Amino acid sequence: MFRAEGVKLVKDILSSGGKLKYIFSTDDHLGLPPSVEQQFIKISEADLQKVSLLSTPNKVVAIFEIPKESSPTFESELTLALDEINDPGNLGTILRLADWFGIKEIVCSTNTVDVYNPKVVQSTMGSISRVNVYYGDLPAWCAEAKSKGILLAGTFMEGDSVYDLKPCKRLLIMGNEANGVSTEIENLLEEKITIPAFTEEGPESLNVAMAAGIIVSQIAGLSLK
Amino acid sequence: MFRAEGVKLVKDILSSGGKLKYIFSTDDHLGLPPSVEQQFIKISEADLQKVSLLSTPNKVVAIFEIPKESSPTFESELTLALDEINDPGNLGTILRLADWFGIKEIVCSTNTVDVYNPKVVQSTMGSISRVNVYYGDLPAWCAEAKSKGILLAGTFMEGDSVYDLKPCKRLLIMGNEANGVSTEIENLLEEKITIPAFTEEGPESLNVAMAAGIIVSQIAGLSLK
Repeated sequence: MFRAEGVKLVKDILSSGGKLKYIFSTDDHLGLPPSVEQQFIKISEADLQKVSLLSTPNKVVAIFEIPKESSPTFESELTLALDEINDPGNLGTILRLADWFGIKEIVCSTNTVDVYNPKVVQSTMGSISRVNVYYGDLPAWCAEAKSKGILLAGTFMEGDSVYDLKPCKRLLIMGNEANGVSTEIENLLEEKITIPAFTEEGPESLNVAMAAGIIVSQIAGLSLK
Repeated sequence: MFRAEGVKLVKDILSSGGKLKYIFSTDDHLGLPPSVEQQFIKISEADLQKVSLLSTPNKVVAIFEIPKESSPTFESELTLALDEINDPGNLGTILRLADWFGIKEIVCSTNTVDVYNPKVVQSTMGSISRVNVYYGDLPAWCAEAKSKGILLAGTFMEGDSVYDLKPCKRLLIMGNEANGVSTEIENLLEEKITIPAFTEEGPESLNVAMAAGIIVSQIAGLSLK
């Protein structure tokens, strides 16, 4: 099971078919479906403060079933792969990004942070209900995608400029915050993408979610030309 | 004064001319300039744990002078303006982004989070030492930029697509996380930029730092064509 807090997020997860187990609420009515509001377990504001993981709790804490694991289809024009992303906030931001650009699937190495970690759930702002996230053998998935004619692309400090990409079906791999893409995955890649720095004195790197956003938006833009 | 922690960050701030007041260290030598290491106030690992604001403290805590306020020049091709950005992590990420793309100045409304907030300082990963951040009367700065022939651009849910921008000198205004650009600033704008959503069912918005990254990278890319 996983936890979600706040009226908006709970509503989003419910509307995309999330299976509710328990729902705790300080109010009788929150604009949720009547069948859900009938299941409200009423709690006091003080109790909400105690059970909430947020600094400013928002009326409702819900417990959902984790959906049954299925397999990625790699059908979309762009699929994301995460190779040991550790920071919950980064994963949440990447999910929200994927959701904005219509990416339906994210495949993750087993050492990537758990998408059902409460911090990730909250930071996805509802996108967890619309983007499918899979954990498993990332090199095997890369091989599977390659066999389907999908280009394996990764992000590196040196490579082809993100401004010169050609449209094609891609699996885009984002690496660990400190160490980048693992050597095992790097050896499988067919395209290394870099975001050119516009100054010589700048930072060593961009935040991984930011880099994902810049590359995803460039790739998405190719489809509009 | 402001605080910075960790060897790498302290080194970055020193190398860009940061004025050191005090430096506390658990080690005798950290690869910092000898004139700095002579000023080390030695502390124990236990004391570092007590004074550090990080979950995993890293050897050194330094106190720097806040540089004297000066005025923005608006000389770069792109300057950022922040209109009530509240989240320290967002400001830090935007500074790092600006630094990567060679943006030298960020002008902020006075109700934007303080760049010398320790969380911001840490999350800039050193970019605080290379990007000048100004706080003041944002509408007046917009008027000043406009009088210099700079296009006032803002980010909105509806506007011109980020994929159709023309190159020109811009002041790009990013608005508050929840409410976007304030009405006062909106009335001054000459260009409304939007990042088109690629699905109808997606999230309500992108994270503001992510949106900044996508727009800044598109604008930067124009200069390469």
